[in-house]
Amino acid sequence: MKSIIVALAGGTGAAKFLRGLVAVVPPEQVAVIVNTGDDALVWGLHVSPDLDTVTYALAGLLDEAKGWGVRDDTFRCLAAMAALGRETWFNLGDRDLGTHLFRTERLAAGRSLTEVTEAIRRALGVRSRLLPASDSPVATRVLTPGGWLGFQEYFVREKARVEVLDVAYGGAETASPAPGVLEAIHAATAVVICPSNPITSIGPILAVPGIAEALASTPARVLAISPIVGGAPVSGPAGKLMAAKGLPVSALGVAQLYRPWLDVLALDRQDERLAPDVAALGIAPLVTGTLMTDRRAEAALARAVVDRLAS
Amino acid sequence: MKSIIVALAGGTGAAKFLRGLVAVVPPEQVAVIVNTGDDALVWGLHVSPDLDTVTYALAGLLDEAKGWGVRDDTFRCLAAMAALGRETWFNLGDRDLGTHLFRTERLAAGRSLTEVTEAIRRALGVRSRLLPASDSPVATRVLTPGGWLGFQEYFVREKARVEVLDVAYGGAETASPAPGVLEAIHAATAVVICPSNPITSIGPILAVPGIAEALASTPARVLAISPIVGGAPVSGPAGKLMAAKGLPVSALGVAQLYRPWLDVLALDRQDERLAPDVAALGIAPLVTGTLMTDRRAEAALARAVVDRLAS
Repeated sequence: MKSIIVALAGGTGAAKFLRGLVAVVPPEQVAVIVNTGDDALVWGLHVSPDLDTVTYALAGLLDEAKGWGVRDDTFRCLAAMAALGRETWFNLGDRDLGTHLFRTERLAAGRSLTEVTEAIRRALGVRSRLLPASDSPVATRVLTPGGWLGFQEYFVREKARVEVLDVAYGGAETASPAPGVLEAIHAATAVVICPSNPITSIGPILAVPGIAEALASTPARVLAISPIVGGAPVSGPAGKLMAAKGLPVSALGVAQLYRPWLDVLALDRQDERLAPDVAALGIAPLVTGTLMTDRRAEAALARAVVDRLAS
Repeated sequence: MKSIIVALAGGTGAAKFLRGLVAVVPPEQVAVIVNTGDDALVWGLHVSPDLDTVTYALAGLLDEAKGWGVRDDTFRCLAAMAALGRETWFNLGDRDLGTHLFRTERLAAGRSLTEVTEAIRRALGVRSRLLPASDSPVATRVLTPGGWLGFQEYFVREKARVEVLDVAYGGAETASPAPGVLEAIHAATAVVICPSNPITSIGPILAVPGIAEALASTPARVLAISPIVGGAPVSGPAGKLMAAKGLPVSALGVAQLYRPWLDVLALDRQDERLAPDVAALGIAPLVTGTLMTDRRAEAALARAVVDRLAS
């Protein structure tokens, strides 16, 4: 049987790790289950930020400086919308718009998000399988002192600067895993949780009934890469969000959150002192360099992960 | 009471004439009733080609070389859609897309086409009033040997190269004039039918019940500018379409079509020999230069029309 690594993924950190992964294993042997909790309607278009970031990264199209969108994109439509008085805090580039228009039109025609995602990744030449966590809407919402915000309102419009009191995954309890998700986890040779925000990238995936259970029952070894290094997230608001959920903002907090089903936690060398505490939770620590500062570092981390999973 | 010239308009020819008109009378004293029979759903977006052409022309944004779209527009989203395998025979520029996205979203939110048109023209600084002929869908369809085509399929996709057997205005019989249309015609100081395709630009407006009757009963003088010069249309497929409707392809054919309510027909100097035949139909001929080869010619034609209407 073909060896398949299944990855659970969110945005930028996942995109980098997956780029490294397909540099060290054949892309066809990677399947990615992607967070949809960030999905938003923008100008009536269905935008799936994490699916797009992962797809663009694997297609070689990602704007690496921004960490989202298409490289060298232009923003003429956005300027036109601004002239028409529409909200433009969510930056949609002209090239990127094609993806959202395509997705929106296909969904309106009755296709599932899984089918649309498959069509997009094939058209863009991505050889790894990409699966949205669910075809049903799961909407990450963030409770702030001013009330509940949609994730994009919190993250993009408010630039994650407001205080976070709680996080919820609207619709998750009645959502089902997308076709192929549970099967992929059960049939995987190994499962990797990408270095993504545990609360708002991995959390919405785990909130879909059946997925955490599949991680617990799969015969495959499950390895997570901590997105928290030295007491702070490498990027993004993961720290605030973990604190809001009562977790220590550290690789140990990540270990606590994933404990029910995690076998191995990759943590950065600067967090080596936490390795015994991780081990005490029954999770094998893998101390390695996790900072993906360039393509070489991305591939090196992927290599360390793949080697550990094969050992 | 304020003097108001009401114009009935289609695409490129109308755009040029209206640009000339607002150069010789205050733009606030012009109200334009615009064809919607060309409207089409493209990638799920509501595109109103004639409303857009007139709006862009009066906003100083029109791509004058093409006669449609926004000047210096880019087509990156179109390229993305092509990469995703979508039909891209209908050219939507990136800047232009903002208009269609805005319109589609507002219509989906329950606004009428009249309201959306008003919002767009105000945002773009157009000082003349723009009224879609109807808020209900009117779909111009063209019968070809291969069957019925939507107008954009015929005009853009097939480049108007196929034989035309008939033209119909789907939905027109049950459509109502948009709010303000009949009132504008009745209250007008003068009515001008722009030099637009009589069958597919003016025809769908006249097919909406009540509009032709309003032209017949308004106290205002009604003047049309022939889009046919020397036996052929200045641009576009008007000739084929008039022939399909059994009309002579000449200024006289235009006169015959508009005869029930027309007072004056402006025809080009090279068609002066037709003036007696026009007069014999009970329509006063205005022989003048109608070829709008530059801004000066546009304004000169508008001046001749305005002077005649004031006489």
